[in-house]
Amino acid sequence: MKFQIQRDRLVNGVNDVMKAVSSRTTIPILTGIKIMAHEEGITLTGSDSDISIEYFIPKEEDGKEIVDIQQPGGIVLQAKFFESIVKKLPMDTVEIEVHSHLQTVIRSGKSEFNLNGLDVSEYPHLPQIEEESVLRIATNLLKTMIRQTVFAVSTSETRPILTGVNWHIENGDLNCVATDSHRLAMRKAPISGGTGELRKAVIPGKSLNELNKILDDNSDELEIVITESQILFRAKHVLFFSRLLEGNYPDTSRLVPSDSKTTLTVGGKEFLQAIDRASLLAREDRNNVVKLSITADGSVELSSNTPEIGKAVEEVPCETIEGDDLNISFSAKYMMDALKVLEGAETNIQFTGAMRPFVLRPTGDDSILQLITPVRTY
Amino acid sequence: MKFQIQRDRLVNGVNDVMKAVSSRTTIPILTGIKIMAHEEGITLTGSDSDISIEYFIPKEEDGKEIVDIQQPGGIVLQAKFFESIVKKLPMDTVEIEVHSHLQTVIRSGKSEFNLNGLDVSEYPHLPQIEEESVLRIATNLLKTMIRQTVFAVSTSETRPILTGVNWHIENGDLNCVATDSHRLAMRKAPISGGTGELRKAVIPGKSLNELNKILDDNSDELEIVITESQILFRAKHVLFFSRLLEGNYPDTSRLVPSDSKTTLTVGGKEFLQAIDRASLLAREDRNNVVKLSITADGSVELSSNTPEIGKAVEEVPCETIEGDDLNISFSAKYMMDALKVLEGAETNIQFTGAMRPFVLRPTGDDSILQLITPVRTY
Repeated sequence: MKFQIQRDRLVNGVNDVMKAVSSRTTIPILTGIKIMAHEEGITLTGSDSDISIEYFIPKEEDGKEIVDIQQPGGIVLQAKFFESIVKKLPMDTVEIEVHSHLQTVIRSGKSEFNLNGLDVSEYPHLPQIEEESVLRIATNLLKTMIRQTVFAVSTSETRPILTGVNWHIENGDLNCVATDSHRLAMRKAPISGGTGELRKAVIPGKSLNELNKILDDNSDELEIVITESQILFRAKHVLFFSRLLEGNYPDTSRLVPSDSKTTLTVGGKEFLQAIDRASLLAREDRNNVVKLSITADGSVELSSNTPEIGKAVEEVPCETIEGDDLNISFSAKYMMDALKVLEGAETNIQFTGAMRPFVLRPTGDDSILQLITPVRTY
Repeated sequence: MKFQIQRDRLVNGVNDVMKAVSSRTTIPILTGIKIMAHEEGITLTGSDSDISIEYFIPKEEDGKEIVDIQQPGGIVLQAKFFESIVKKLPMDTVEIEVHSHLQTVIRSGKSEFNLNGLDVSEYPHLPQIEEESVLRIATNLLKTMIRQTVFAVSTSETRPILTGVNWHIENGDLNCVATDSHRLAMRKAPISGGTGELRKAVIPGKSLNELNKILDDNSDELEIVITESQILFRAKHVLFFSRLLEGNYPDTSRLVPSDSKTTLTVGGKEFLQAIDRASLLAREDRNNVVKLSITADGSVELSSNTPEIGKAVEEVPCETIEGDDLNISFSAKYMMDALKVLEGAETNIQFTGAMRPFVLRPTGDDSILQLITPVRTY
């Protein structure tokens, strides 16, 4: 294998595939990046066997040469070293050549690196995906949907299925739900393609976080293929594979209360800042619990108290207050997480009592919902 | 005590005095910030008993009111909580009022915080400094001198005196030296004021690092007073006190070789980048040792080698090479630290053999010197 390549393109590709490479792997060759030089260009692959990323660098683009392939072939190079080398090379062009015994020379200007390569035939194959049904969605919309749900997945392995986001595709709608059993985040939006039949997938939260880092924030269409055990995301130069979580995701539809006894409408940004301040004197060992009080005269107050330090009181600016008086306590962190993904929009909060989960929605928008279970205080 | 104050001025002051506050202190009241309201304005104080910082906020500046004092007095408030509260308050103005039993109310818009205060009379007094002799230097010059020397102090407590920078003021010159016994950094520059007599001080590296964070990068004159056990830096609104290290600093003047057998002149920036790359394949457990080879035909090469991974070779771009052939190994980290503070200037490197310390200086500039001891390789 021998080729010259534009360094910035190589750096971009390495940055992306590194998202799948883990230094803690039981399969030693997966600490490497697979580099293949072929007729059409260069393909880089990284994988931790849960996530696999393939990045393609074409020989030329818009009439400009990016790669000059003198001899096709392949090699696997230690990802950590290869990454730091290509980032620091002095010139705009890099030459990579494999000699005998897998010895690989990386050359740029007056810098020369010799790396011991690994045999490309020992690198695991990527999942085989049968493209029976391709879904399509704008990249920036998918990024938003991921961001609005993935934070709510469970970080505990007690119920592994809850570490994923539940995707449910039916009648042209993608519905994403995540819950750690204390709070729940839901977002839905139209998706095109597919057969219209029900498709389900529980995607590991970690995979969605890494995918979100790689995808550019543009409106280009992204293709998605779901199989029994894998999901594939296909962007312009990148293929992103993730395994799916096995097992049945719990039915979350009945968790959302349909009635409401007290309703607030608040400015999302001001309410977020007030919660942030009110939580400053909340006890750290109790997950920063703040108390919200709604009284008959129409005032709403947030407060927290740590006897040895002091207390905080915030009067909440509300657009509208309707319904019964209420004293309710909840995790300031959960509330702030939910308000952050509502992005400062005017927010409607529906309570059905101090011990029942409550629901946040942007006013007049049913495509997104955040549910939080209150904390019992004594 | 009761006053209203512009929030941004209070935040600036709290940021500065927080640099001296440690959460790990044996004197509980030092986890607090002392706030004094008096005729002229507000004084904030933070201290960990090694470093003390006093910040003054005047009642008015340039004809604009900054503080409105309704009742003079003082209080000590928990630094960590006070800092996060004032940073997040909603309005441009803050009111602080001390009630009975040291209960302190912080109010801004519809936010109200009650903090349990501590008695200001229990807060330790700042060091008393007799102003017999005041030195003066431009703030940005002092910041540069600190940056060019403090990185070389020892981080080990085996020889505590080496954790400080040795200041030596004589005949209108300030001479700063730091060494961890493997490398040495020296910088000198003129300083005004003082009596012309010899003054010495060994200032803890930690103090100089904190001082550097607080000082603005401008050419305003800074006043310095040195006593037996303390040093005081006085800027426009800030007093910075540090204790001095006790004991005799070793005589470093004889460490710098006066002769030279091989001399290189290199572009500082290009050489730094070449060292950085050459060190990528240096063994981590050997402090990233790289080898420099100068051969008869005038070529200079940097290299590193880790058999299980691979090797790196860099041809070094030199302006001039003079003297004997040489093979020498050194810590890439020490070399990069030294080259960074020389700020990319054309650099002269003088070697006196593979086992002797070598010296880096900007070409034609004797005010700064970096000395590095080579590493013996087998």
